[in-house]
Amino acid sequence: MTAQPATPDEPVGVAVIGAGYWGPNLVRNFMATSSFRLRWLCDLDIGRARSVLGEYSKVRASDDLAEVLADEEVQAVAVATPAGTHLRVALAALQAGKHVLVEKPLAATYDEGRRLVEEAERRGLTLMCDHTYCYTPAVLRIRELVHSGELGELHFLDSVRINLGLVQKDIDVMWDLAPHDLSIIDFVLPPGVHPTAVAAHGADGIGAGRACVAYLTLQLNTGAVAHLHVNWLSPVKIRTTIVGGSKRTIVWDDLNPSQRLSVFDRGVDVATREELGADQRRDMLISYRSGDMVAPALTEREALRTMVDEYARAITTGAPALTDGRAGLRVLEILEAASRSLGQGGRMIKLSEGHLA
Amino acid sequence: MTAQPATPDEPVGVAVIGAGYWGPNLVRNFMATSSFRLRWLCDLDIGRARSVLGEYSKVRASDDLAEVLADEEVQAVAVATPAGTHLRVALAALQAGKHVLVEKPLAATYDEGRRLVEEAERRGLTLMCDHTYCYTPAVLRIRELVHSGELGELHFLDSVRINLGLVQKDIDVMWDLAPHDLSIIDFVLPPGVHPTAVAAHGADGIGAGRACVAYLTLQLNTGAVAHLHVNWLSPVKIRTTIVGGSKRTIVWDDLNPSQRLSVFDRGVDVATREELGADQRRDMLISYRSGDMVAPALTEREALRTMVDEYARAITTGAPALTDGRAGLRVLEILEAASRSLGQGGRMIKLSEGHLA
Amino acid sequence: MTAQPATPDEPVGVAVIGAGYWGPNLVRNFMATSSFRLRWLCDLDIGRARSVLGEYSKVRASDDLAEVLADEEVQAVAVATPAGTHLRVALAALQAGKHVLVEKPLAATYDEGRRLVEEAERRGLTLMCDHTYCYTPAVLRIRELVHSGELGELHFLDSVRINLGLVQKDIDVMWDLAPHDLSIIDFVLPPGVHPTAVAAHGADGIGAGRACVAYLTLQLNTGAVAHLHVNWLSPVKIRTTIVGGSKRTIVWDDLNPSQRLSVFDRGVDVATREELGADQRRDMLISYRSGDMVAPALTEREALRTMVDEYARAITTGAPALTDGRAGLRVLEILEAASRSLGQGGRMIKLSEGHLA
Amino acid sequence: MTAQPATPDEPVGVAVIGAGYWGPNLVRNFMATSSFRLRWLCDLDIGRARSVLGEYSKVRASDDLAEVLADEEVQAVAVATPAGTHLRVALAALQAGKHVLVEKPLAATYDEGRRLVEEAERRGLTLMCDHTYCYTPAVLRIRELVHSGELGELHFLDSVRINLGLVQKDIDVMWDLAPHDLSIIDFVLPPGVHPTAVAAHGADGIGAGRACVAYLTLQLNTGAVAHLHVNWLSPVKIRTTIVGGSKRTIVWDDLNPSQRLSVFDRGVDVATREELGADQRRDMLISYRSGDMVAPALTEREALRTMVDEYARAITTGAPALTDGRAGLRVLEILEAASRSLGQGGRMIKLSEGHLA
Repeated sequence: MTAQPATPDEPVGVAVIGAGYWGPNLVRNFMATSSFRLRWLCDLDIGRARSVLGEYSKVRASDDLAEVLADEEVQAVAVATPAGTHLRVALAALQAGKHVLVEKPLAATYDEGRRLVEEAERRGLTLMCDHTYCYTPAVLRIRELVHSGELGELHFLDSVRINLGLVQKDIDVMWDLAPHDLSIIDFVLPPGVHPTAVAAHGADGIGAGRACVAYLTLQLNTGAVAHLHVNWLSPVKIRTTIVGGSKRTIVWDDLNPSQRLSVFDRGVDVATREELGADQRRDMLISYRSGDMVAPALTEREALRTMVDEYARAITTGAPALTDGRAGLRVLEILEAASRSLGQGGRMIKLSEGHLA
Repeated sequence: MTAQPATPDEPVGVAVIGAGYWGPNLVRNFMATSSFRLRWLCDLDIGRARSVLGEYSKVRASDDLAEVLADEEVQAVAVATPAGTHLRVALAALQAGKHVLVEKPLAATYDEGRRLVEEAERRGLTLMCDHTYCYTPAVLRIRELVHSGELGELHFLDSVRINLGLVQKDIDVMWDLAPHDLSIIDFVLPPGVHPTAVAAHGADGIGAGRACVAYLTLQLNTGAVAHLHVNWLSPVKIRTTIVGGSKRTIVWDDLNPSQRLSVFDRGVDVATREELGADQRRDMLISYRSGDMVAPALTEREALRTMVDEYARAITTGAPALTDGRAGLRVLEILEAASRSLGQGGRMIKLSEGHLA
Repeated sequence: MTAQPATPDEPVGVAVIGAGYWGPNLVRNFMATSSFRLRWLCDLDIGRARSVLGEYSKVRASDDLAEVLADEEVQAVAVATPAGTHLRVALAALQAGKHVLVEKPLAATYDEGRRLVEEAERRGLTLMCDHTYCYTPAVLRIRELVHSGELGELHFLDSVRINLGLVQKDIDVMWDLAPHDLSIIDFVLPPGVHPTAVAAHGADGIGAGRACVAYLTLQLNTGAVAHLHVNWLSPVKIRTTIVGGSKRTIVWDDLNPSQRLSVFDRGVDVATREELGADQRRDMLISYRSGDMVAPALTEREALRTMVDEYARAITTGAPALTDGRAGLRVLEILEAASRSLGQGGRMIKLSEGHLA
Repeated sequence: MTAQPATPDEPVGVAVIGAGYWGPNLVRNFMATSSFRLRWLCDLDIGRARSVLGEYSKVRASDDLAEVLADEEVQAVAVATPAGTHLRVALAALQAGKHVLVEKPLAATYDEGRRLVEEAERRGLTLMCDHTYCYTPAVLRIRELVHSGELGELHFLDSVRINLGLVQKDIDVMWDLAPHDLSIIDFVLPPGVHPTAVAAHGADGIGAGRACVAYLTLQLNTGAVAHLHVNWLSPVKIRTTIVGGSKRTIVWDDLNPSQRLSVFDRGVDVATREELGADQRRDMLISYRSGDMVAPALTEREALRTMVDEYARAITTGAPALTDGRAGLRVLEILEAASRSLGQGGRMIKLSEGHLA
């Protein structure tokens, strides 16, 4: 009952589960690529599924997950239902031998996420997490700049994702928005570098019953810091991430399509004492680089399209996706620790020492 | 030996102590206003004082503080020496019966600052802290919008002040930059609202021996949060403060001279249960305002000029300056608590409950 | 054989002719609205039509215009073929009794455009020009501000539309890009105000055989000026229009989604001599307003969707569309005059005195 | 009676004539450099001169030009009086054997300017035009990029200088603002490239009696075009110049201090037919480069300070200044031709064929 790796020659039959906010985007992208053949859109509310497909589409709507999973031509599913249902839906799909892509977060809890990872690994099925931002040309390039050593050692990472957002009924702003930034951090950190602890502060100014503004501070094992600001109450939209390194510093402004990435050869250098002799005065050791800034040419490509291609690649090769279930699990661990910190007045909470990597 | 309130008719004789980074700006502004008559520029390095004055100036240079304080025509001094010397210099000036303006921070420690405040109050002399940003047209307007009730209740305040800055030898980035933001917060918070605790996180990526990146979280007595990001290592300069309220949200971008302030009638409203009946579902209570944004016309005026005028006003009327010694003291208390937090892994440190106000 | 006004209750059967650059956008929008029922996508290259529709669509592809026009359930067509074919295709459609929407420009020449307008008027059919930008929320609001008198008298209009664009094989940059701006100007000018002459300058720096950079200056009958800069060679994309009036000035920055419109209460006022007495000196008459700027909240709505709705409205009511064939004709007249000017070293070419309005 | 080249060892005695808008800037910069010794500030209104100097200055004020010119220690003057007086004042100074720096424009007319140039050349004195913008780090770098060949062949130059400006009593917006852009163009054009004709369009929307908005189009001898937009009525300030070349395109945004210059390796390439064979189709010849953008690090230095240094260099070496009287004359020729064009409905007016260079 296990799905075979699809051959590159024929498209992978796929079904999308969930016709809410994100499902239509998956529908559109599965339809646009020849790697997949979209067969179903499934939603408990079949009217919503039909409305998303529109009257011109040949894709079938269903409100019965079992019916969809029983379709032998469906080799893969994409789950875009509320996080609380991820475990049930994805588990059913894995047990039916289907490859599974899950919208972020991987599951409602770390434990639920682990059950999915284990199930997929036991069955040799692809489990992928739709960390969409990781597939933007900008983040792919940041990863390249960090992993290639061009950035040097990471000094700090600062991410701001604020907007007038929909106040969610079931989750706070941290669970709503921080998965984006945490998945990006997980994606770009070089091998061997990982968070060791997290502290979170938040506020619920409007009396929504949950944090609408939150700040997360991650300590990395190198001594560097990563910091996130997520906010539902800001009338201005800001999506800026600064990745500061010893050789270069990258500024990613996702709202500036003509210059999303700026790579600065500008910074502070501190020479080590060994080089200069122990008697040299401290203030002699600091120097400033004031080089050019380069904004690399990036191809404009929809991230979701690249993500869908990566899903196809993972299925057909059997190799883990770039953002596999374990990546989703690492994000969940930090979110849960951050929630604990929020409940304890911002106490720094230790993370497992990278054993998930 | 106590200086008399100067009459409005004649200018106040003033001496600037310290010809380093900030002194020349004070010199220029004291010379530009008819409220003051600049008599001395004093620096231990008299060559530096002479060089600041230039060869065309009639103002006298000195390297002897006693000589300057002995000048009976000097009624006021402005201290722009390193923070570690503020106590000594300012105390000498107060004891010589001079009014005193001190560059931020008021002193190197809270205790030193308190000695200055007490000395000035005992002698009935003006003690003012040069919290320059408070006198920008933008901050004055923010204060007005908050105090008038136009902003509504404060929900959050977020301030980012990052730049490729000079790594200081004696103080970390928090003591270097956060006084600006803390003094602004102190200045704009409405009566009755004040910080109750502070937590700080930082990192020293470059091995400078002190934090070069720092994040401060202030809890306010109303449940709202204020957050600061100060950073010496950012190749991009950002100076943006968002003041989120229940009726309006203000965005202050100090680097956008053509639109420093944007006042948004945009936000999230949550109705109270009482209004709607207890059986109403939670998600019904939230609504969104999507009104216009107004960028108020601001006069361009150098903040330092306005500050100097306020110093003259305080001296001549005997009333406390808008940013008096006690304002400087409140900033110092937070800085010291933040330093303690930094040393304790970001623990939340309680502040005295507003008895300083 | 003339199409009847469709009843509001049933959708208008529509066919899109042309599956090139613009056709797919029309296809998507006709499918998204319940006012239309998309029946065909027609292209000489049926493979291209099929590829645009994709494998999931029930809409029929055709490479035979006659077949499409013979379909009695097709009451309306949308022509998105090259400009040189507009006359032939649109005329055939009108003669088959179909309502016609034509992509800009209305036709390859003014004379061809006039034949279409006359044919449509003779048959009582809707002829509409797809001046898409006129249906953006920003331009609709500009029109409102100008027509309501809030702007005051128009002083100048300056439009910049530059980008690294595709160098067209058959037309110069003016014919490629200026129709956008000319249609916007035609749309927002208040009743009674119209261009009376046009001059054009251009350059073909790259040796493309046609102007790649062009500047158009339009004299208006009120003495005001409108100026356009269109450019295929700019590595930066700028789309900014300033509409300067006696009471307000509007800046439209189409690339700033968070603040597309800025309405300034800022300007220069000149009092008339009558008011002040003839002996008053000239320089006394000028005063400056320095009021606030308001960025009105705009709903984000795809312009093409609004345009398609307007097409439906015109068809069902029989009233002319906001951008009807005559609007397309007025744009063509200016383009032809501008081409003449370009060929004559920038000579100012007179336009017909508004008899087209 | 002719001034000797000053030796590098001793400062050049200088007097500033005119204490209006620009004079104080010259005063400040002459005082800041050791190359000059400022001796006088002269203005018909001696009160204004005294007020500019302030009560602390040792520099002498005068309302008597003859007195200043009679001072033998004055070797050089800087003229910052209204343009209509430049001839009289500068001529008197030259005749007194002084080197002369003149604020832009060089004179009120081309003929007056030529008299100054001839007088200075006859006497072997330095005549320099204060084309301040040419001495900004940005323009100096643009010149370098163009002259070094890095830009390739110039395709177009587009300059926008708009603002809510002071409506001048005696000159139109073209004479007020375009000298800046024309002097920059003169400064950066590579050897052998020069304007051959100019056309100007304008409008006086507010009834000020002179053009408040103007557009200038310059034809260059290479077929390239340069275009200027100057405007007193724009509530937004824009100062952007695009210099498009065959290899690079430079965008200079003078209002973006953190990124004034952006150098794009992005553009359209057209291969010549010879290379490809005459039978190759036209559309095969065009290709697009989409390389990175580099924002070169620029030192922040006040342009006026660099200009003053250049004045000192010209005086002490006897070599012409970078912006000498002939440069000022070339700007005047274009301004006069543009005025003629404005009066003739935008007719293209020929310029002398570069014999001024």
